[in-house]
Amino acid sequence: MSKLQTPRGTRDFLPIDSIKRETVFGKIRKVFEAYGYDPFETPAFEFWEILGVKCGEEIREQIYRFKDKGGRELGLRYDLTVPLARVIASDPTLPKPFKRYCISRVWRYERPQAGRFREFWQADADIVGSNHAESDAEAMAIGTDCMISLGLEKFHIRLNSRKILEGLSRAAGVPKEKVFDSFRAIDKLDKIGIEGVRGELANRGIKEEAIQKLLEFVLIEGSSEEILEKAEQLMAGTDVGIEGIHEIKEILELSRAFGIKDRIKVDLSLARGLDYYTGSVFEIIYEGEKQVGSLAGGGRYDDLVELYGGSRSPAIGISLGIERIIEILNEEGKFPSKKTNVKVFVAPTSDELRTKAIEVSQILRREGIQTEIDHAERKLKKIFEIASTQEIPFVVIVGPRELEKEKVTVRNMVQQVQEEVNIKDLPEFFENIFT
Amino acid sequence: MSKLQTPRGTRDFLPIDSIKRETVFGKIRKVFEAYGYDPFETPAFEFWEILGVKCGEEIREQIYRFKDKGGRELGLRYDLTVPLARVIASDPTLPKPFKRYCISRVWRYERPQAGRFREFWQADADIVGSNHAESDAEAMAIGTDCMISLGLEKFHIRLNSRKILEGLSRAAGVPKEKVFDSFRAIDKLDKIGIEGVRGELANRGIKEEAIQKLLEFVLIEGSSEEILEKAEQLMAGTDVGIEGIHEIKEILELSRAFGIKDRIKVDLSLARGLDYYTGSVFEIIYEGEKQVGSLAGGGRYDDLVELYGGSRSPAIGISLGIERIIEILNEEGKFPSKKTNVKVFVAPTSDELRTKAIEVSQILRREGIQTEIDHAERKLKKIFEIASTQEIPFVVIVGPRELEKEKVTVRNMVQQVQEEVNIKDLPEFFENIFT
Repeated sequence: MSKLQTPRGTRDFLPIDSIKRETVFGKIRKVFEAYGYDPFETPAFEFWEILGVKCGEEIREQIYRFKDKGGRELGLRYDLTVPLARVIASDPTLPKPFKRYCISRVWRYERPQAGRFREFWQADADIVGSNHAESDAEAMAIGTDCMISLGLEKFHIRLNSRKILEGLSRAAGVPKEKVFDSFRAIDKLDKIGIEGVRGELANRGIKEEAIQKLLEFVLIEGSSEEILEKAEQLMAGTDVGIEGIHEIKEILELSRAFGIKDRIKVDLSLARGLDYYTGSVFEIIYEGEKQVGSLAGGGRYDDLVELYGGSRSPAIGISLGIERIIEILNEEGKFPSKKTNVKVFVAPTSDELRTKAIEVSQILRREGIQTEIDHAERKLKKIFEIASTQEIPFVVIVGPRELEKEKVTVRNMVQQVQEEVNIKDLPEFFENIFT
Repeated sequence: MSKLQTPRGTRDFLPIDSIKRETVFGKIRKVFEAYGYDPFETPAFEFWEILGVKCGEEIREQIYRFKDKGGRELGLRYDLTVPLARVIASDPTLPKPFKRYCISRVWRYERPQAGRFREFWQADADIVGSNHAESDAEAMAIGTDCMISLGLEKFHIRLNSRKILEGLSRAAGVPKEKVFDSFRAIDKLDKIGIEGVRGELANRGIKEEAIQKLLEFVLIEGSSEEILEKAEQLMAGTDVGIEGIHEIKEILELSRAFGIKDRIKVDLSLARGLDYYTGSVFEIIYEGEKQVGSLAGGGRYDDLVELYGGSRSPAIGISLGIERIIEILNEEGKFPSKKTNVKVFVAPTSDELRTKAIEVSQILRREGIQTEIDHAERKLKKIFEIASTQEIPFVVIVGPRELEKEKVTVRNMVQQVQEEVNIKDLPEFFENIFT
């Protein structure tokens, strides 16, 4: 057999990695639930005609597309938002606002590079059926609390609005039918720089003068309030732009009550890659040394549910990029590297006592204490070695002399001390230590 | 848009279902970890040549197979065992025995029917690198503890060995090259009955006399010990059969120390569907009214890692069928139907107080208390209605009179009583209730 590796851009997660990832998932889940979001899942694949809509040309090319044996055209989901919109459209009876979270995998056939994978995990929280600014501010508050709960402090939030961008594009002289093209070009600013974007806009048939103006507009600097003030002046007359500015102002105001105002910087050059965004868009930017782009992003997609045939359902969500977050947590040394969750190794002093050792281990296991037994008739010395290497903190030694007194010896592998404990007191003994 | 449903055999899980499923996953995870298994994940898809090996013809036909844009032949994994074997084969440095669990989804293009899906979840715990009977007994103990932890009491475990089956097949006169065919036919006994199996065996070219004998052999009745005794007599001379009987006897003996002996019934007609099994095989059978087949199954697959080019690594695992377990839990009414995890709804008495209500909710959320706020400027009366319908146990009312005293009113929706609580005491107030 060759090809024992995983397909390119996908990975195996051994326990040492999985333990980390489960910790991250658990913390994010706790924040999502604290904000009143409930769990929700959808299939890994969808009908192609669902996926192909409103993702933008770049992502459409990246979807894993295939036919099942019945000839149906399917694709692996490339995000968790489109399936949500489909569910909402298909079931008009769902109470609104509908708040759900989903921490799960998605697939995109991207060029694999550092921190980019073809199979990766997203953690999304979305609220559907609310056009209130509370929801926009809440999405950013969730992102903030997730970062802090994970131990990340160095970050800020870039905030913009597709409506403002549209207003600025129109004010700069971009024709209406090319507004989306201008979003797509501006979205690449971080990747390809100003000259790159200039070229991209020109390629899309936008005139030099409009390009010049648009770039000036989106690169306005100042405080959030100053930027909004200047933008408002620039687009006198374009209703959509003014609407966007008022929305962002209200979101900023509410963000103070959410306790996240200081994190937010309005940045008119933020566009986001997906075509389905319609209003506010935001990204959480890591400020540490390592350059990783955004750790999370989100925005409003007020038209998506309607596009699938549902009733009008304004919606906003945040999506956390698990892979980058884990990369940063590793980088910052926020993870104590843990080889196993096992806390106790039960071992007999001789082979005749192995059934007794099993009985002792069962007492602990039924109390939920993570307990290992030997499966290979190894000597006690070898068990100590394994416990040391695997960083298992306790070994319970089942020996004949202690057994006569209904006792076992508990060895603390860290402190290198041991004591005799009554077998019936073992669960309490360990519960006192581990909780 | 048409086709708003999910592809056939796949499902969306709304919060009411997801909350149940997360509860089930959590309980199983706790048992797996108590037995010293660590988390582990692999990609959703594998190279086709990995998946196609040793699954058996029936399952091979059910694999979702496709090419990626680079022309690589891939398939969605149909179980969690094959990817594990690949990982073990690819990384000889992994310490053995290697114990991992995985609770995740798999895909098979089956004919959808009650309780059968094309996308479904398995919960697997496996130990690789041990040929000791402890491991076989432990796999069954894990299954037992999972059932009990989920509240299921009515079940027993069918136990057999592929080695005994091989011995019996050979003793009955089945030619060596048709032994696997006999396993596949016997595996269908529950589905197609004795006459069906008889036909199947005949179709596979096994002689009438051998069929008659084999069916007599596998249908021997009695206590586990009696059955093993009779089987041992029948196959005097076939080494593999005798070996199987000794292994099962040792497993039975150890199962007493694990506290599960009374659950186990040796049943020589148990074959299991997958081709990779080599030794003990078992299934957990639900004994309630509803006929659902097995809730879990497992067995030894001592050759699989070697087959992928790894060193010899005897292995055994258990796989729990999440969908059937949930079906039974629903049937037995073991789930209190829970519409949401939200515990507190914070609502202002008037629109001017909405930022104050957000501030109060943030205090609770940052303590991890599942808290909802209004996103639609609804009246207090409406909020009470929502809390009742959604079964949210508490509403915190933010009103001007109480605010002057730095207080809010907490309404217990179940008992229909309310009291004033200092805002700064809110986290403690709810923590005392919820923990």
